[in-house]
Amino acid sequence: MNFGVLGSGTVGQTIAGKLAERGHAVKVGTRDAAKLSDWQAQVGTSVSVGSFAAAAAFGEILFNCTSGSGSISALQMAGEANLNGKILIDIANPLDFSKGMPPSLTVCNTDSLGEQIQRTFPALKVVKTLNTLTAQLMVNPALLNNAEHDLFVSGNDADAKAQVVALLQREFGWKTVIDLGDITTARGTEMLLPVWVRLWGALQTPMFNFKIVR
Amino acid sequence: MNFGVLGSGTVGQTIAGKLAERGHAVKVGTRDAAKLSDWQAQVGTSVSVGSFAAAAAFGEILFNCTSGSGSISALQMAGEANLNGKILIDIANPLDFSKGMPPSLTVCNTDSLGEQIQRTFPALKVVKTLNTLTAQLMVNPALLNNAEHDLFVSGNDADAKAQVVALLQREFGWKTVIDLGDITTARGTEMLLPVWVRLWGALQTPMFNFKIVR
Repeated sequence: MNFGVLGSGTVGQTIAGKLAERGHAVKVGTRDAAKLSDWQAQVGTSVSVGSFAAAAAFGEILFNCTSGSGSISALQMAGEANLNGKILIDIANPLDFSKGMPPSLTVCNTDSLGEQIQRTFPALKVVKTLNTLTAQLMVNPALLNNAEHDLFVSGNDADAKAQVVALLQREFGWKTVIDLGDITTARGTEMLLPVWVRLWGALQTPMFNFKIVR
Repeated sequence: MNFGVLGSGTVGQTIAGKLAERGHAVKVGTRDAAKLSDWQAQVGTSVSVGSFAAAAAFGEILFNCTSGSGSISALQMAGEANLNGKILIDIANPLDFSKGMPPSLTVCNTDSLGEQIQRTFPALKVVKTLNTLTAQLMVNPALLNNAEHDLFVSGNDADAKAQVVALLQREFGWKTVIDLGDITTARGTEMLLPVWVRLWGALQTPMFNFKIVR
């Protein structure tokens, strides 16, 4: 399958690298393709690099790995024609570093970045997931406790969510993905970031995840 | 030990009942003592009921089990002289039901109820904890997975936090309490409520808790 990965930071590189390792063709969209030449040489020819529009056009399924503050503009650069009808797996968090550390959120409580993206691009099938843990664990949950910990999914389109859950299980090895409901439930997972950041500080490592014990 | 429990809803009754069962003397503070006469008859003579001021004066350690929207006013009614120098275990969440269901928060992101209480009563030792799970589990974590799940604690006073953690372990049976840091980390645990509410909906039960898998 062809994937488009928007954003070329740690999250974008990790997702793209894993998808390539799994045998898929991937195009990474970025504002500055030149800075990725070293990385691209490492990951091999199944990963190409281009503009946001080129990556969005290439992918049958898209990942939003841009920083939250730049997500809407990146998607606008990708272009509605390249987005419409597709699934966007939205990993971005609306972190606000402008007020110092730890970051706060640019949007929360009665709205979320996931909802903002869905409202801005109504024909895109936004599925929020993977935004509650560090990049390395997103694509390799078995690094912790035999993958016995939980991921959450939010979105308005039931079929799109089912496809994403199947992909997370098949390609990344996730066991449990809890469907929280429609895209408004992205408020809940984005609002996990403040405690996530503090847990990183308390535990002195980002290699942890939430498990819902019942 | 003598405890003062401010608030007489499900959380206050559950905490007071458990402390009484453990052999402590408890005074519950409420705006309307008359409505608690049936409950008081059940729990026995080690629990008394009175005003917020009477409960605060009685307790060597206090619990804030009022609704978040009424916490500051309840503490003002309790009176600074009855609060100063004591530990307040703050369980309240700033839930806002005025905008419909699910609730949003009246304060979050760059502030929290825990911080508001600490700012309003500087000589009170505010320790935020127990606010991330349902009342029944607060006092009996062994109901889930042999108590192998996590509680968080936030507060500015290290000694107060240590006393509270010891109390949670000794009286309620908690195994793991993660110290997130100062009272500003209460933002993180109060902001867990939106995903907690959605998890309740998705799982169809409030009998769950977070475990941090490392």
